[in-house]
Amino acid sequence: MFSTLSPGALGLDLDHARAVELAAAHGFGGVDPDLGHLRSLGASGAAEHGAAVKEKGLQWGMAGLPIGLDAPAEEFRRALVDLPADLELLAAAGVTRLGTWIRPMHDELDHRQNWRLHQGRIALVAALLEDAGLRLGLEYIGPKTFWSTERFPFIHSLREARELIAETGARNVGLILDTYHWYTAGEDAEQLAGLTDADIVSVDLNDARADRERDEQQDLDRRLPFDTGVIDLDGFLRAVGAAGYTGPVKIEPFMATLAERPVDEVLSQISGLLDRAIAVGEQR
Amino acid sequence: MFSTLSPGALGLDLDHARAVELAAAHGFGGVDPDLGHLRSLGASGAAEHGAAVKEKGLQWGMAGLPIGLDAPAEEFRRALVDLPADLELLAAAGVTRLGTWIRPMHDELDHRQNWRLHQGRIALVAALLEDAGLRLGLEYIGPKTFWSTERFPFIHSLREARELIAETGARNVGLILDTYHWYTAGEDAEQLAGLTDADIVSVDLNDARADRERDEQQDLDRRLPFDTGVIDLDGFLRAVGAAGYTGPVKIEPFMATLAERPVDEVLSQISGLLDRAIAVGEQR
Amino acid sequence: MFSTLSPGALGLDLDHARAVELAAAHGFGGVDPDLGHLRSLGASGAAEHGAAVKEKGLQWGMAGLPIGLDAPAEEFRRALVDLPADLELLAAAGVTRLGTWIRPMHDELDHRQNWRLHQGRIALVAALLEDAGLRLGLEYIGPKTFWSTERFPFIHSLREARELIAETGARNVGLILDTYHWYTAGEDAEQLAGLTDADIVSVDLNDARADRERDEQQDLDRRLPFDTGVIDLDGFLRAVGAAGYTGPVKIEPFMATLAERPVDEVLSQISGLLDRAIAVGEQR
Amino acid sequence: MFSTLSPGALGLDLDHARAVELAAAHGFGGVDPDLGHLRSLGASGAAEHGAAVKEKGLQWGMAGLPIGLDAPAEEFRRALVDLPADLELLAAAGVTRLGTWIRPMHDELDHRQNWRLHQGRIALVAALLEDAGLRLGLEYIGPKTFWSTERFPFIHSLREARELIAETGARNVGLILDTYHWYTAGEDAEQLAGLTDADIVSVDLNDARADRERDEQQDLDRRLPFDTGVIDLDGFLRAVGAAGYTGPVKIEPFMATLAERPVDEVLSQISGLLDRAIAVGEQR
Repeated sequence: MFSTLSPGALGLDLDHARAVELAAAHGFGGVDPDLGHLRSLGASGAAEHGAAVKEKGLQWGMAGLPIGLDAPAEEFRRALVDLPADLELLAAAGVTRLGTWIRPMHDELDHRQNWRLHQGRIALVAALLEDAGLRLGLEYIGPKTFWSTERFPFIHSLREARELIAETGARNVGLILDTYHWYTAGEDAEQLAGLTDADIVSVDLNDARADRERDEQQDLDRRLPFDTGVIDLDGFLRAVGAAGYTGPVKIEPFMATLAERPVDEVLSQISGLLDRAIAVGEQR
Repeated sequence: MFSTLSPGALGLDLDHARAVELAAAHGFGGVDPDLGHLRSLGASGAAEHGAAVKEKGLQWGMAGLPIGLDAPAEEFRRALVDLPADLELLAAAGVTRLGTWIRPMHDELDHRQNWRLHQGRIALVAALLEDAGLRLGLEYIGPKTFWSTERFPFIHSLREARELIAETGARNVGLILDTYHWYTAGEDAEQLAGLTDADIVSVDLNDARADRERDEQQDLDRRLPFDTGVIDLDGFLRAVGAAGYTGPVKIEPFMATLAERPVDEVLSQISGLLDRAIAVGEQR
Repeated sequence: MFSTLSPGALGLDLDHARAVELAAAHGFGGVDPDLGHLRSLGASGAAEHGAAVKEKGLQWGMAGLPIGLDAPAEEFRRALVDLPADLELLAAAGVTRLGTWIRPMHDELDHRQNWRLHQGRIALVAALLEDAGLRLGLEYIGPKTFWSTERFPFIHSLREARELIAETGARNVGLILDTYHWYTAGEDAEQLAGLTDADIVSVDLNDARADRERDEQQDLDRRLPFDTGVIDLDGFLRAVGAAGYTGPVKIEPFMATLAERPVDEVLSQISGLLDRAIAVGEQR
Repeated sequence: MFSTLSPGALGLDLDHARAVELAAAHGFGGVDPDLGHLRSLGASGAAEHGAAVKEKGLQWGMAGLPIGLDAPAEEFRRALVDLPADLELLAAAGVTRLGTWIRPMHDELDHRQNWRLHQGRIALVAALLEDAGLRLGLEYIGPKTFWSTERFPFIHSLREARELIAETGARNVGLILDTYHWYTAGEDAEQLAGLTDADIVSVDLNDARADRERDEQQDLDRRLPFDTGVIDLDGFLRAVGAAGYTGPVKIEPFMATLAERPVDEVLSQISGLLDRAIAVGEQR
């Protein structure tokens, strides 16, 4: 696994060129690609940019999937019209991972209806991504304060996410594992047993507030890893290490305070936390 | 449809013989069978009792299914061991309807796991009931204050219940429709369109408190039909009438205050409310 | 229901303008739209053409869906890119029905994998069609000599087709019922019970060879309706009539000999057979 | 893995005591338990017998599941009534594996209906077995001459069998892998990738006739392993070895000629073939 700088996940407003510089300067192993930036470069520019990032010793993290999985049919269709151009740019730049999250509730579609919607659309998108050499990561969402807010709760556990992925029949779809969702879903290391590198597309590390019960935790109010100790990061990291995971690891705390501190100070802290976490995961 | 006296649903502690007398005296069209009573009578006694009830002009309502659909496997197996004796008694007495409810959440099994558990067990139970000439009614539960209390919400809408019934492949399984669940599930008359008599095993009529939002309603704190007008009973009854429903209609308010009033006064009121409701449903 | 001239189904090579003339001349109630012809007319031409056909007293039958449901992902995506232009033409002309068939076997995908492929893609296509006011008809294929020719048989019965349609959750998807598939699938009138007009998009009438067992019948070697009497057309038609079916009825015998006879003679015979059949279906 | 003497699989009519003697004499690593024999011994006798077999250096192979998974509901119920007594005997004797096969077609139930029947019943049976410390093995059947003989083909591939097992949610259910089914299903070593010891309950080794195409092979007309070389036994065994399989391996040729030869000669040959096969599987 390698540490990744994902400015968006940190709430930092950095343009992509600066993010690349800072990732290299602060010893990150990788940086998230920026699809908007690649679009501005065109295909040959994207290839050059990918080579330049690689030259700096950085790997690509994960780009955001430019498709809303549960969008209205015509909007989804239009995203498919536009998809090949983006996939070409991503492939040219050497990006291999795209990711999105699964909205854990719906006001109209019940669990089975929503499942079928997602299964069919993910299978189609995954096949198109596979043609371009890209993997798709799916993130399940854990907080009850989120999934219980509409008429029909949807996937909010690792097991459900794995079954959905299996049903797509796609070999290039895997999980985005976020400790915050894993914790709020009431899961522990046992749920992670049996995973392999092929099952994991990205890993997010976060801690949770110590002054709230699990079912009261808010999706957008997290803590930095190893801060409160509420989440069993060591157990999680050992399990991910046992899976032989080789991909990006980032921090996604949704803490507005990070953007208020000097960026170098923040990135130095983040990079250090990721190094510490990866050391736990790679212990034998 | 016909009005039915169900002492348990009214919170009244009446022995079965008295319930039969009172049902006849207060002009109910039917009375709920009491499996415990039938067990005490034996097969030939059950047949005589069924004939006697019929003689009084009463039809049978619905008995409770003596099996916990989501019980541990060994407990479920043991219930299957005992089932034929009960089915023989019920059939001897002329009972044709058994019912149970679907627990709308689970702390261990997620929606799909729980679905498979229910599908398999209901299919088996329904086949055994069919051999005995019995139908099985399933009640979905609507209040969010109920289905949101554990890790995994389960079926809490009419559409889900209908899909589950369809998947059992059984022709003798139908719905128990309760206005309280229909209302708290956020449903209206459109959801009832297309139902036929074969799809409905029993109907429960209730109203809801006027001082609570839909999502705040409590499963065990209801009101008598036509009391607050919160629930669109007329729309519901017209839809059930359009389905050609021929079965029992009862009231299940879970109001402790009923048991504190004189029983004849209560049953007179209940019988009158049911007559009023049935008149709405049978209008053309 | 109304009789429809479908030149392709009869193996006749008629250009569309002539097909319209002949349909009117021989007393058909409708004629199949020709998407290629509409494309050559453009949107305003399509609208004029639709009005002209209507003026002749003809209704539209069913156009072929210009999408291969089980095409490779990129081919399917490209068909979605092109779909809106076709839907605009069809809607302008007043066409309301599109149809396709379900390939009843696959050499790679087993039954469940193929089901998920179809479910997802049909749901998406149906939603796009619904936006354009179009219904989608799906035809299941019955002959065992067809579905048993690869590693994994797929849908080859009415019940499977109905479950697939239900799972798409689409209200604008229905069946193409063909007596040849109904017969070779081993079905009878009981399977048609409970269908409504909303469940049926098109009806095909054919008979089967008398010198072959059901499981030896070939998909492309059929007989004209009422020819051999092998297929219970009367039972089928009464069931379709009981469903209140209001759509197109055609003959699809795949008999090369029709194209060798004078076209007026053939169409006179076909129109007469359809009138006879519709009379059976509309008897009360 | 260890070689197992399964008289039934070899078509040999040996009483159980003699089978145990012969297994030990011919160097088998195990012998199949005989539920009928255990019933005749009672619980304490079964425990003694298990100890005696172990003393001879033999492990238990797999007993037959005394339940028809697709039996009529009342027959299935009655099997559940009788099950605990058998499970007690098997557990007392130290047996840990029970197995059955999945009938690969049905004349009434289509693929999805049959799937639901099997899913529900296997889940229930597996839970009851788990309480007794027993694992359940399921064998999928490959020959097209078998699965294509009724209206609705069912599971006839490894992937389908694995999905069914996953859907039961049971941790004590695994595969019975038979090279004959693996070959006739058109599978190769790739399909076996990723299996672990927990996924496999028993292994059967057979070869196929050289003078027939794959789709013409008959289920009951097989050859001894390594005989014709039609089946890639080495590829199969290496994959099973890579899975870390630790269970019984037997031969099930359904060749009537074996019973016509001297039993010691036959068992010597069988034991030698199994040793050869296991050596291939355990090569590193």
